[in-house]
Amino acid sequence: MATIAILGAGMMGSALTTPLVDRGHSLRLIGTHLDTEIIGALKAGREHPTLKLPLSPQIQGYFHDELPQALESVDALALGVSSAGVEWASQILLPFLRPRLPILMVSKGLAWHGEKLVILPDLLQTRWPRELELHPVAVAGPCIAGELARREQTCVLFTSRSASATAAWAALARGPYYHVFPSDDPIGSEVCAALKNAFAMGIGFAAGLHEARGQLAGSIAMHNYEAALYAQSIHEMKRVIALLRGEPETAAGLAGAGDLNVTCNGGRTGRFGRWLGLGLGLQEAILRMQGATLECLEILSVLRGACAHYEQRGELARGELPLLEHLMEVALDGRPIQMPFERFFDAAAPEAER
Amino acid sequence: MATIAILGAGMMGSALTTPLVDRGHSLRLIGTHLDTEIIGALKAGREHPTLKLPLSPQIQGYFHDELPQALESVDALALGVSSAGVEWASQILLPFLRPRLPILMVSKGLAWHGEKLVILPDLLQTRWPRELELHPVAVAGPCIAGELARREQTCVLFTSRSASATAAWAALARGPYYHVFPSDDPIGSEVCAALKNAFAMGIGFAAGLHEARGQLAGSIAMHNYEAALYAQSIHEMKRVIALLRGEPETAAGLAGAGDLNVTCNGGRTGRFGRWLGLGLGLQEAILRMQGATLECLEILSVLRGACAHYEQRGELARGELPLLEHLMEVALDGRPIQMPFERFFDAAAPEAER
Repeated sequence: MATIAILGAGMMGSALTTPLVDRGHSLRLIGTHLDTEIIGALKAGREHPTLKLPLSPQIQGYFHDELPQALESVDALALGVSSAGVEWASQILLPFLRPRLPILMVSKGLAWHGEKLVILPDLLQTRWPRELELHPVAVAGPCIAGELARREQTCVLFTSRSASATAAWAALARGPYYHVFPSDDPIGSEVCAALKNAFAMGIGFAAGLHEARGQLAGSIAMHNYEAALYAQSIHEMKRVIALLRGEPETAAGLAGAGDLNVTCNGGRTGRFGRWLGLGLGLQEAILRMQGATLECLEILSVLRGACAHYEQRGELARGELPLLEHLMEVALDGRPIQMPFERFFDAAAPEAER
Repeated sequence: MATIAILGAGMMGSALTTPLVDRGHSLRLIGTHLDTEIIGALKAGREHPTLKLPLSPQIQGYFHDELPQALESVDALALGVSSAGVEWASQILLPFLRPRLPILMVSKGLAWHGEKLVILPDLLQTRWPRELELHPVAVAGPCIAGELARREQTCVLFTSRSASATAAWAALARGPYYHVFPSDDPIGSEVCAALKNAFAMGIGFAAGLHEARGQLAGSIAMHNYEAALYAQSIHEMKRVIALLRGEPETAAGLAGAGDLNVTCNGGRTGRFGRWLGLGLGLQEAILRMQGATLECLEILSVLRGACAHYEQRGELARGELPLLEHLMEVALDGRPIQMPFERFFDAAAPEAER
């Protein structure tokens, strides 16, 4: 059994302790400067303040200034920081890295690096010395942290640029309720993981638009609208994956269709979309979310810049991503929702009869 | 503008009148022997008894013994009968068919013909003289009839073995809220349309399993379970499509991922799955559905026979469709639910540590 450190004690980093402890590993959970209350609760034997349940008493909690002790002779390391914290984490971890240390990351996102969109595992790799031969393994697929922490059946992808690195982490983590499937497509998996938040917001519009007409949700609502967006989301994920030279097929699996499904069912992103559908202005919708991180806005901002660049280079044509383009108009510019269904699925220009 | 007859006045056949009337066509809605009450209501100007809303007064209603008058000099014909009624419809329509009459069908299903699984448009074609050059166009994709009848935004696929037949019906039907996308993969589209009911039942298990433990549905429930099944459903749709020599990619689009999404959100199939998840016996779950047609059981029965046959011929290996196989065990044999997650996504045999 291994000694595993997790940096970042938010919902997902903390939830990941559950299958790992159940596999018999020794766990060290390290808070960032944002997690002081959480680590305090862990050390005092109280429940996790955001997961709302106690973690295993076998887990050792560490404040972020205890990092050196926490990382002493660990066999594996997982990053549970937010996507915004990945750069920071890459720096503070640097002194403690050793060659071929198995590294897992639950942080999801795409970074724009002036020239191209970069997935976070690749970003990490560029920050660390090549001779360390580190291959960060990313987690993708449908996993609500609160459900994993409650040992609900969960299927995820582990993926990296090294099959052996992926296999090593899969062997550490998989268990009777945490089913880990290896994937050799980190680009496709991470594109899906990042984009799903934007699409889930759009699918959430339907509930708001329906309620805005004074109608109750039920078996008759705007489910046709939602499902059309759902299919178009997978279609556009494929296009962005192809742009980044990943495997478009990944969008039809756990990382794409699966994670989008769970994000629509369990997440705050859909609620934000619903506020917009109800006709609230952009600023008011953001206020109603009471400070919750809105990954959908972050990824749409990144994509807007990136798409302009890829269009200039002739790698993407204007109109190839009609749903994403409209989501940018609504969620970044505050334009009203007017879904361009007639341009979905690579349809030709709208026909005369429309 | 065209004169269009629709045979079958159930929910979907009747809902299809709405976009067609709105496009300016003359509509004739013909009841089967099951639709006498519906046609009576239409002739009397009352609301449609199952759609619970009035149809356009411009629609001419016909009882099934008025078929000859109803089909006189029509420009196009749509079949809104149930999949069980397709054979019957093929016979009674035979005297009224003329060469290249545009034919649309909303009936969905797969038929087992001793040697292979056959999609319903192909079944129809074998029943009619070849020299008539009829190419039935199938409708697939996420479309709750009650929403189409209320003019909610809806995206569907039209598909047949003739691009011109598909284009002709698409041109008749598409409009500002009924977005029709042509597809040249009738096999893939129809496989998805048939299988989605079985998968939606399985996804419904999760709600029942969760409630059976005394827990309320919420943002924390068994959404990871549902989403894993959702992704595996698309994966197995692809496998069945490949078996029938269609385009596996179709499963990621409107016909597969899209229709499965809407079926989970709007349908009776998910409710049936929930009863099974709650632990009701098979017979009791069927009773609770109060006589509703359970397409999920029909398609699972057809598939069980078909899979055995394809396995014997070496075209399919036992275990390639672990979710469908388990759904058959639960819904046909009354076995308890024990989801084989570890065999999803073509995983190798369960590993030692599980």
